[in-house]
Amino acid sequence: LRVREALRASEPVEQVKVQGWVRSVRSQKEVLFLHINDGSSLESLQIVADPSLENRDLTFGSAVEVQGKLVKSPHKMQNMELKAETIRVVGPCDALLFPLKIKERHPLEYVRQFPHLRCRNNTLGSLLRIRSEATASIHSFFQDNGYVHIHTPIITSNDCEGAGELFQIGVSNEAKESAEKTHFFNVPAFLTVSGQLHLEVMAGAFMHVFTFGPTFRAENSQSRRHLAEFYMVEAELSFTESLVDIMQVMEDLFKTVTSTVLSKCPHDVELFHKYIAPGQKPENFVVPLIVIFKTFSFLLCSISYSEAVEILKQASQAFTFKPEWGCDLQTEHEKYLVKHCGEVPVFVINYPYDLKPFYMRDNEDGPQHTVAAVDLLVPGVGELCGGSLREERLSFLESRLQRLGLADTYQWYLDLRKFGSVPHGGFGMGFERYLQYILGVDNIKDVIPFPRFSHSCLL
Amino acid sequence: LRVREALRASEPVEQVKVQGWVRSVRSQKEVLFLHINDGSSLESLQIVADPSLENRDLTFGSAVEVQGKLVKSPHKMQNMELKAETIRVVGPCDALLFPLKIKERHPLEYVRQFPHLRCRNNTLGSLLRIRSEATASIHSFFQDNGYVHIHTPIITSNDCEGAGELFQIGVSNEAKESAEKTHFFNVPAFLTVSGQLHLEVMAGAFMHVFTFGPTFRAENSQSRRHLAEFYMVEAELSFTESLVDIMQVMEDLFKTVTSTVLSKCPHDVELFHKYIAPGQKPENFVVPLIVIFKTFSFLLCSISYSEAVEILKQASQAFTFKPEWGCDLQTEHEKYLVKHCGEVPVFVINYPYDLKPFYMRDNEDGPQHTVAAVDLLVPGVGELCGGSLREERLSFLESRLQRLGLADTYQWYLDLRKFGSVPHGGFGMGFERYLQYILGVDNIKDVIPFPRFSHSCLL
Repeated sequence: LRVREALRASEPVEQVKVQGWVRSVRSQKEVLFLHINDGSSLESLQIVADPSLENRDLTFGSAVEVQGKLVKSPHKMQNMELKAETIRVVGPCDALLFPLKIKERHPLEYVRQFPHLRCRNNTLGSLLRIRSEATASIHSFFQDNGYVHIHTPIITSNDCEGAGELFQIGVSNEAKESAEKTHFFNVPAFLTVSGQLHLEVMAGAFMHVFTFGPTFRAENSQSRRHLAEFYMVEAELSFTESLVDIMQVMEDLFKTVTSTVLSKCPHDVELFHKYIAPGQKPENFVVPLIVIFKTFSFLLCSISYSEAVEILKQASQAFTFKPEWGCDLQTEHEKYLVKHCGEVPVFVINYPYDLKPFYMRDNEDGPQHTVAAVDLLVPGVGELCGGSLREERLSFLESRLQRLGLADTYQWYLDLRKFGSVPHGGFGMGFERYLQYILGVDNIKDVIPFPRFSHSCLL
Repeated sequence: LRVREALRASEPVEQVKVQGWVRSVRSQKEVLFLHINDGSSLESLQIVADPSLENRDLTFGSAVEVQGKLVKSPHKMQNMELKAETIRVVGPCDALLFPLKIKERHPLEYVRQFPHLRCRNNTLGSLLRIRSEATASIHSFFQDNGYVHIHTPIITSNDCEGAGELFQIGVSNEAKESAEKTHFFNVPAFLTVSGQLHLEVMAGAFMHVFTFGPTFRAENSQSRRHLAEFYMVEAELSFTESLVDIMQVMEDLFKTVTSTVLSKCPHDVELFHKYIAPGQKPENFVVPLIVIFKTFSFLLCSISYSEAVEILKQASQAFTFKPEWGCDLQTEHEKYLVKHCGEVPVFVINYPYDLKPFYMRDNEDGPQHTVAAVDLLVPGVGELCGGSLREERLSFLESRLQRLGLADTYQWYLDLRKFGSVPHGGFGMGFERYLQYILGVDNIKDVIPFPRFSHSCLL
């Protein structure tokens, strides 16, 4: 029996076996109390035993197997408890050497030093259960809405998507010539920064497609907002002529997944809102989250880039980077805009043409020339999603690629516009940023099981 | 309205809009027939229109939007058809330049040359729908059974898992010193060959965990059985003392996913069994698959490695590699064993200690010393799954790692045996090999959207 099931049982059970790890030991004269956790829930199961079952290996962290009767608990805080008949220590744990200590709330920075043990800490345990539920919910959301899942490639020969520094692939055998190293694939090969272009291929056959996998940036940054390896949810929709269609999918995805997580992992989410989120006031998070997905339409807060720049220019706040039409919005600007709109998610649309990659659709406006791009900004995190309509018109795309000297490289991409091209668009959502936002986690390293960043690749 | 929904409608609909790509055009004196496919199903929707709606851009491959009435079709082969009122060509397609031709069944080798267009071919379309359903079913299977999903890392500093050649990660900026290149993470970093060791970390907190992601081998092989980038489903179970528990999960996973795919994509699967599978006789596949998951328990066909070697030694067949206790089973051996057992899935258990990696559990037998490992062999493919019990006993693992000179490198892995160690085990299943098996696809390059192998990394 799993601990989660034992805690939820409605009836006593004569003979049960529970396995897990000891979270507390309290030995009294007449009775021995244990708490056993098996990772199926944040809550542990209370074991009540005769003191004769005490054993010096029965310490915090040890693995045990307990047999006995599952009975109604006399305590209000728990539904059921287990009256032990036998307790077997399967694997002892040297409490002195074990870096996690009984009844201590270790800071996240502390547990980060032990990537092989930190999942046995309450906070990381809750995080990983939430992450798993969110992952399942993302897959269900797209499947329920008729999207085909595509494994876009991790290794790619596309090297010029303009997304910063790339990781390059070589072969590890030191004896090999370095020329050979980079030529396993005959061409230089890199770790993907986005599955978008490959999804566009597929959107030319399946209407709606999505991918959810790892992406990579070799940015030499140790910030709390960047990882070298992180997960992106990306979707692409054919026969779409309006940015609003894309924004609506972003909103539906956010609301569906958040609603699933809140209903499936209420205690795990509560732990973050109570102890981890800034201010540590659940109402700071829970109320806004509930408001957001019950009554608030994200589309209500949609401003153009040009409007955003005007808002920033009129701000009384002094920015490090002066807001100016044609310049990228900085994190400080994004934060201000979110605050300005009332600490809710904000869409910013129609960015300057010269600021954005070649594949974004020309709005043919002026004198301030823009493309049909959209970013979703959220409190505490900044950019959560980015998307655009893609340039489906062969002549526009061809001339832009030619000006960039990329027409040869992207011949295959131009082909997609020659053979049954359709208006289409899509977006990507950073999965770790999503988790940071809904849980109020300050450092991105604390929402992924094995963080990779510059100067660190533990295990 | 999606084509799949239109085809399944039970009632006529007055006003509908269907979008997709033209699969056939037949112009008669009195009537114009089109077939429109939008990737939601293998079947296309028949459009019946007045010849006045004909248009020279209305060619095979062009993208169209059709409005009209959905009505019952007079033809037996289809349920519904669309009486067009308007037909708009959204994106034309130059039929002469388009490498896919109307009504031609292109060989898979031919369409493989066009990775950006091959998804518009029937076979690849069906494959990608099946792959998407199988992916969703794998996630559901594990979630329904209480497993926590873990994103095991793609970039890892573990370099000695003994799985052949590794891809190493560098930073692409050519100007950088090569010393710096390999030191983005301060240590040499590689693309993962398996998430197992990281899953073992998590099995020490969550009982049952799984991962489903890309894995990599830098094998210089162009065989129809190997890719440089492929997908693995891996699971790890705590408190497991018997190989049979692991084998049972392999079987349940296989049966659940296959049953879902057969029921959700019957036409797509039929296409493979009719036109692609060797012999092209559906009964060669469909019957065995149905038999397998209805009435056949994989566990019935479980032989030890030692028995397998005896069977091979007594075979009348001449092998290129002579079967000998202590040597790896070759593909020719695996094929013979599967045939010997009646062309059904076969488990081979308890492999020689010296043949297997350090983490496999010592059976403490003799004189032929084995470990608790298991491979699942299937017809046409060979090894589909590999698993083992892991060595949970600190003293056994420590002395084995010391003999291998790896005790320092795997200090963290030894830690897992110091702090509440439990008997555990797990397995991995090659996702592409799974698809090859159930569909009868000879070449692994034809079951993945963007194949990567030595000398090839298109797009």
